[in-house]
Amino acid sequence: MFRTHNCGELNISHIDQNIQLSGWIQKSRDLGGLTFIDLRDRYGITQLIFNIEKDENLCLKARKLGRECVIHIEGIVVERSSKNKKIKTGEIEINVIKLNILNLSKSPPFTIENNTDGGDDLRMKFRYLDLRRPISKNKIIFRSKIVQEIRKFLNSNEFIEIETPVLIKSTPEGARDFIVPSRMNEGQFYALPQSPQTFKQLLMVSGFDKYFQIVKCFRDEDLRADRQPEFTQIDCEMSFVTQDEILNKFENLIKYLFDSILNVKLNDFPRISYEDAMKNYGNDKPDIRFDMKLHEINNLTKNKGFEIFDNSELILGINANECSNYSRKSLDEITNWVKRPQIGASGLIYIKFNTDKSIKSSIDKFFNTSELKKILDYFKAKPGDLILILSGMKNKVRKQMSELRIMMANRMGLIKKNEFAPIWIIDFPLLEWDDESNRFHAMHHPFTSPKQNHIDILSQSPEKVLANAYDLVLNGNEIGGGSIRIHDMNLQKLLFKLLGFSEKEAQNQFGFLMNAFEYGAPPHGGIALGLDRLCALLDGNESIRDYIAFPKNNSGRDIMIDAPSHIDNSQLSELNLKLDI
Amino acid sequence: MFRTHNCGELNISHIDQNIQLSGWIQKSRDLGGLTFIDLRDRYGITQLIFNIEKDENLCLKARKLGRECVIHIEGIVVERSSKNKKIKTGEIEINVIKLNILNLSKSPPFTIENNTDGGDDLRMKFRYLDLRRPISKNKIIFRSKIVQEIRKFLNSNEFIEIETPVLIKSTPEGARDFIVPSRMNEGQFYALPQSPQTFKQLLMVSGFDKYFQIVKCFRDEDLRADRQPEFTQIDCEMSFVTQDEILNKFENLIKYLFDSILNVKLNDFPRISYEDAMKNYGNDKPDIRFDMKLHEINNLTKNKGFEIFDNSELILGINANECSNYSRKSLDEITNWVKRPQIGASGLIYIKFNTDKSIKSSIDKFFNTSELKKILDYFKAKPGDLILILSGMKNKVRKQMSELRIMMANRMGLIKKNEFAPIWIIDFPLLEWDDESNRFHAMHHPFTSPKQNHIDILSQSPEKVLANAYDLVLNGNEIGGGSIRIHDMNLQKLLFKLLGFSEKEAQNQFGFLMNAFEYGAPPHGGIALGLDRLCALLDGNESIRDYIAFPKNNSGRDIMIDAPSHIDNSQLSELNLKLDI
Repeated sequence: MFRTHNCGELNISHIDQNIQLSGWIQKSRDLGGLTFIDLRDRYGITQLIFNIEKDENLCLKARKLGRECVIHIEGIVVERSSKNKKIKTGEIEINVIKLNILNLSKSPPFTIENNTDGGDDLRMKFRYLDLRRPISKNKIIFRSKIVQEIRKFLNSNEFIEIETPVLIKSTPEGARDFIVPSRMNEGQFYALPQSPQTFKQLLMVSGFDKYFQIVKCFRDEDLRADRQPEFTQIDCEMSFVTQDEILNKFENLIKYLFDSILNVKLNDFPRISYEDAMKNYGNDKPDIRFDMKLHEINNLTKNKGFEIFDNSELILGINANECSNYSRKSLDEITNWVKRPQIGASGLIYIKFNTDKSIKSSIDKFFNTSELKKILDYFKAKPGDLILILSGMKNKVRKQMSELRIMMANRMGLIKKNEFAPIWIIDFPLLEWDDESNRFHAMHHPFTSPKQNHIDILSQSPEKVLANAYDLVLNGNEIGGGSIRIHDMNLQKLLFKLLGFSEKEAQNQFGFLMNAFEYGAPPHGGIALGLDRLCALLDGNESIRDYIAFPKNNSGRDIMIDAPSHIDNSQLSELNLKLDI
Repeated sequence: MFRTHNCGELNISHIDQNIQLSGWIQKSRDLGGLTFIDLRDRYGITQLIFNIEKDENLCLKARKLGRECVIHIEGIVVERSSKNKKIKTGEIEINVIKLNILNLSKSPPFTIENNTDGGDDLRMKFRYLDLRRPISKNKIIFRSKIVQEIRKFLNSNEFIEIETPVLIKSTPEGARDFIVPSRMNEGQFYALPQSPQTFKQLLMVSGFDKYFQIVKCFRDEDLRADRQPEFTQIDCEMSFVTQDEILNKFENLIKYLFDSILNVKLNDFPRISYEDAMKNYGNDKPDIRFDMKLHEINNLTKNKGFEIFDNSELILGINANECSNYSRKSLDEITNWVKRPQIGASGLIYIKFNTDKSIKSSIDKFFNTSELKKILDYFKAKPGDLILILSGMKNKVRKQMSELRIMMANRMGLIKKNEFAPIWIIDFPLLEWDDESNRFHAMHHPFTSPKQNHIDILSQSPEKVLANAYDLVLNGNEIGGGSIRIHDMNLQKLLFKLLGFSEKEAQNQFGFLMNAFEYGAPPHGGIALGLDRLCALLDGNESIRDYIAFPKNNSGRDIMIDAPSHIDNSQLSELNLKLDI
């Protein structure tokens, strides 16, 4: 036996008991004839005492042990004279009578403390040590709690957990697949799923009614910061449901999670259309923890002789409340910020509504005070406010303004870490035109259904068709999305055609699904939530990497195990493959 | 809205209520002016009535609908005149007032009933329809319940669920890996995990103390019947535990499952050594639902002038109770059965202890009655018993006898489907010699620790070393296995050396683990249970395929989606690969 208790549970009620503990040496200090060791395990820290007068050999043995050594001790629980209220075991300490060294430790490459001296690369290489730091360990435990609560909610709502296959078929639509050569089927390949989409739809055809799975998905994309080639999805599907029923169900899931994990009660989530999101926030994942909506001011700004506005498709402004006192320097900073290539604006216009009600603007030359006042009024500006204006091509200026809005909110301290503002974005367009490939792409995916009353115009005006699609957005991050799916074979065929699939390609890649639709497919829809990000956001963070036990870096490498790696030629030749480098 | 209730919940308490249901037409029949439809969903079946006198159009519309059409109806709950006690909704029926056809169905390729007319291939191709059959659907739901209970037990026992990566590194030891080419790391490959073994050990080094995961694993093996290239493992690991503590914990898990799922209380599981299992049952996964142990009778049978015995390394017998009345024909059948190439025995010897106490044997010529009686006594044979004897090389004859034992038990009706006899096999050898590769292989895996008191002889007599390894066997099937792991770097290095790894190979493949052992690795051990088989066995079946929503066939193909498949050359060239066929 290695222990009778763990390092987090002993207290005043255990006094005089003979106990055994095992764990790691967090730190050790010698004070006169006493040696104190803080012994750590997952559950906490317990203070051990070795008394040189009572047992010299034992005490000397203990003194030789460095940090992170693993030991097993037997001892007697005694009351501390000076109690430590900060830790659970702070009322007691252990007079050690036996010491068994289970394993030694080299000096770790960084300190095992929340504030470590280890850089990112070093901590990732020694991830097993990084995970000893409470701040890292707690994030993984936090994730496991979330997963437990998600399952609790879904199970009690009659969702059945079903595993779908990982070795599936490559379907080039969408992101790039990871592929897996098949040895037994020469020249053929499996693909790893980007999502279990078609399988969960087939489960609805089977009549499972409510399905969920917490499942690894895979995308071979060039990794942007904070993207992982493998990620975990909370994947759900329901039959015989309307869009509102799905939204309500998963809104309840999120409310339940916030309540059970954080003890935070969320209000009903606003639901706004994609069109409104783009108009008011310039993007489809708005952070609504603060207002500062985008306002189109074309009518108030065009044809006043200011060429830049006159040549712009869209002129957008935001009202930065109580920022009229921004100095020239500050405004230059902001201007430089929007002109950076990452944002790409050509310049920034401001109108200051000073506290003395005077107006100062960078376009004084073209706009008189009354014209400027009209703009201020349109923004409902109060003395002390600052209007910031960008102009240009509609899509670009929206994106730029949306970035500026977030930057300003950060600068103004409007973004509070522990405030949570979820919102549903609905009524997405079904398709979006892609200039590069010169064809329509599915805005969500090819299985998303168009609005019932838009089906008639699908062939004539596909660009106008809205979809039964929705995204769940939290604090400016998309945490999930879904749709009511197509369950009619002919409609699905039409969609594939609009997306540029030949009939043969559609049949080859998705024939099984379309065939299934011919045998009594029920109306169905669902959602997929990104677990990694959900964990990060619930914990008040944005980076997902810390919530993954063994994450990969931006090149898709696991630097701890050094993967991917070269393999034996024999492995390749068994698969009938040759490197072509 | 598609429904106010499901098809399994309406009863006498709902009478006169206006309700809505959606589901599939299970069957339909016309009786005079009435049309009856059985409407099915996941939850049950509800009887609908259309009355031609009340609403002719509605009734005629209903009459046109075939099996498996999907409909949505509104109606009034009424009491049935002739109640059907067999189904939950058998007290009521629905007078339909509105009928909305949601989807039509072609005639299914097989009947959607437990006793279907569809063959295996057809059902697999149309798995989404196969899963509509209650017998198929219930197996998937059964699995989901088991998974729920497993998590409940492990969560309440302080195990933390942690996801380990799927894209890892190829390690040729053991079975063949599936590999995944990396596009971003030219010429390099990930592998899919055969198990999360090294990661769960690293989690122990991190101090997570108790880990579990229900996780997909992958093996690119030539598939024997009832093996899948992807399978699901209940993967667990604990720190600071003895072998007995692990066995107790997971014995409790299995007891909990049987109790909560089947309401079956299991007794404590016997624990026998590998050596005893081989001696008494001829294999390391004995079915102990019945006795009929193997007895070595070399001493009683050698040097009696019977050359076959004299030339045999091992002479084994079993006592088939109350089978002395077997006819010549039956004995010939059994003899032919053991002589089949799959078993490979050269012949079968019998000794009949007839009910009249006379003895009849196929070796009468070489053994007198008293010698035969001695053998009978050794088996504690009673009048009416039949002794069956095989002889030959030790390993072969054990295997043959172990097969014969099972065959006889089946023939004698000793194997009861709903009887459960779990057993732990312990004290496995650490290594086994492989003639083909002319080196030792790890009997479990290279991370298994030798018995503490055998470490000294590891270098000198590796073949004699026993391991802290254990298998859990249920009704003759291995459902799991595990070990106390090595946590000492030098011991791990020695093991790799004994297994024929060069120091460079060991460092290259498992350097990260051995490095981790230098930073305070705790003693740890664990187990992995095969979920697919556990589900099948708990449900009284042996075939795992039915408990997998979308299984693959014996060539590793998913014949529903037709995977694996050919991919575009562009996909291959992005990965710097060429087919070499």
